[in-house]
Amino acid sequence: MRLALGLEYAGQSFIGWQSQPDGRGVQDALERALAGIAGAPVRTIAAGRTDTGVHATMQVVHFDTDALRPATAWVRGVNSHLPSDVAVVWVQPVAADFHARFAATSRHYTYWLVSRAVRPALLAGRVGWYHRPLDVTSMCDAARALAGTQDFSAFRAAECQAKSPVKTLSTIELAAVGDFVRFDFSANAYLHHMIRNIVGALVYVGAGKEPVTWIAELLAARERSRAAPTFAPDGLYLTGVDYDAKWGLPSTRRPALLPLA
Amino acid sequence: MRLALGLEYAGQSFIGWQSQPDGRGVQDALERALAGIAGAPVRTIAAGRTDTGVHATMQVVHFDTDALRPATAWVRGVNSHLPSDVAVVWVQPVAADFHARFAATSRHYTYWLVSRAVRPALLAGRVGWYHRPLDVTSMCDAARALAGTQDFSAFRAAECQAKSPVKTLSTIELAAVGDFVRFDFSANAYLHHMIRNIVGALVYVGAGKEPVTWIAELLAARERSRAAPTFAPDGLYLTGVDYDAKWGLPSTRRPALLPLA
Repeated sequence: MRLALGLEYAGQSFIGWQSQPDGRGVQDALERALAGIAGAPVRTIAAGRTDTGVHATMQVVHFDTDALRPATAWVRGVNSHLPSDVAVVWVQPVAADFHARFAATSRHYTYWLVSRAVRPALLAGRVGWYHRPLDVTSMCDAARALAGTQDFSAFRAAECQAKSPVKTLSTIELAAVGDFVRFDFSANAYLHHMIRNIVGALVYVGAGKEPVTWIAELLAARERSRAAPTFAPDGLYLTGVDYDAKWGLPSTRRPALLPLA
Repeated sequence: MRLALGLEYAGQSFIGWQSQPDGRGVQDALERALAGIAGAPVRTIAAGRTDTGVHATMQVVHFDTDALRPATAWVRGVNSHLPSDVAVVWVQPVAADFHARFAATSRHYTYWLVSRAVRPALLAGRVGWYHRPLDVTSMCDAARALAGTQDFSAFRAAECQAKSPVKTLSTIELAAVGDFVRFDFSANAYLHHMIRNIVGALVYVGAGKEPVTWIAELLAARERSRAAPTFAPDGLYLTGVDYDAKWGLPSTRRPALLPLA
């Protein structure tokens, strides 16, 4: 039987989603907890392989098991085996050909940034931080150049293994919320570090280090070496994954409407 | 010279504000960091001695030092010596007779509670959790009985050392924000565990375990043994302290407008 589940986690104490030899991936924690309920080893596949320090309000995962358990066992039972910063939100039986990664049509991320003189303490590891005021209007203007189907080589990490640098960024939206800036991204897929590289470049524009037109120039030049440094993972949240309605999943989106503490 | 400072911290990794023999109080971390800048031991006094696991968006502290340092050293310098979950927000020279604790006229706290079937992961340790829906209207109605100058013995911890159980609760307000309930408290002073005991009792009302009138009955009975269990510290934030304007302090309030992740 194949099951899908929605997962929430804080990324700080994990070496990313993916299973690690030392067992410190989110996947390792989840597979240990699932095995505790299934009574047998369980192998999981996730929609998005989040990096070290990246959070999820809604990661979608699937796994196969012969164990017949009530839904409460797969949610509350598994949660009792998980560390406090990881929780299963829902579980749902799915068709045998559902695939959390390959059936995903779009992935949604939010980046939260705070601009203030003093580093955040209550939100340490949960928001990106820039120590000076940012011109969010300029950042919005600059971000428009990134929307659509484009070659994102300028925002691609050296170790990126994607076959093509062309991705479709269907949403890139910024909003100022008090001292915070919220960035929302939706795309079919992303290059490695693409969002954090885009955030880093937009912060350069917001801080007045580069003009609004610089983002379009960077994109056109397709050279990573000309862009700004990769921004911290701290403020990045996977907030949902889209699938065809035919799979009959519960809600696979959960906004990261963050803190103002 | 006497200095006052505003401090932000997450309470999870500390055994409360107060200095501990093993150095795990917030006070220990702050005094170590201040000593690093002052080049000599520093002793601090805080407005509110928060318990284990309780957070602060705005704790007010004073200390004496002979070290002459620019304000940036006492803020950014000290912050570079503090763990990531503690930060000095401002520092200000004050009159020699200012006292963070005894000069405080009012203390403000916010409690954030989430009611949902699944325990919170991203906000683990940062919000209280109740696993079933709550009737917030009933809780508001019940809370009204607690406002004003009253004998709060029913909400007093056994180990409370306050001279009198009579305190003036000038504000007790509840608001539903999505699945969250926000409780705001202002009082001249509090009994030990008073807020967490009040939250626990109001949750009993919200869950339908007790009627709205029960809170007034509890208060009148003045017996702790009849009340509900003490609620978790996870959702409790010290959000500010009031002082007479004559002390010339920067803002000593900072609302905990929490997360909805």
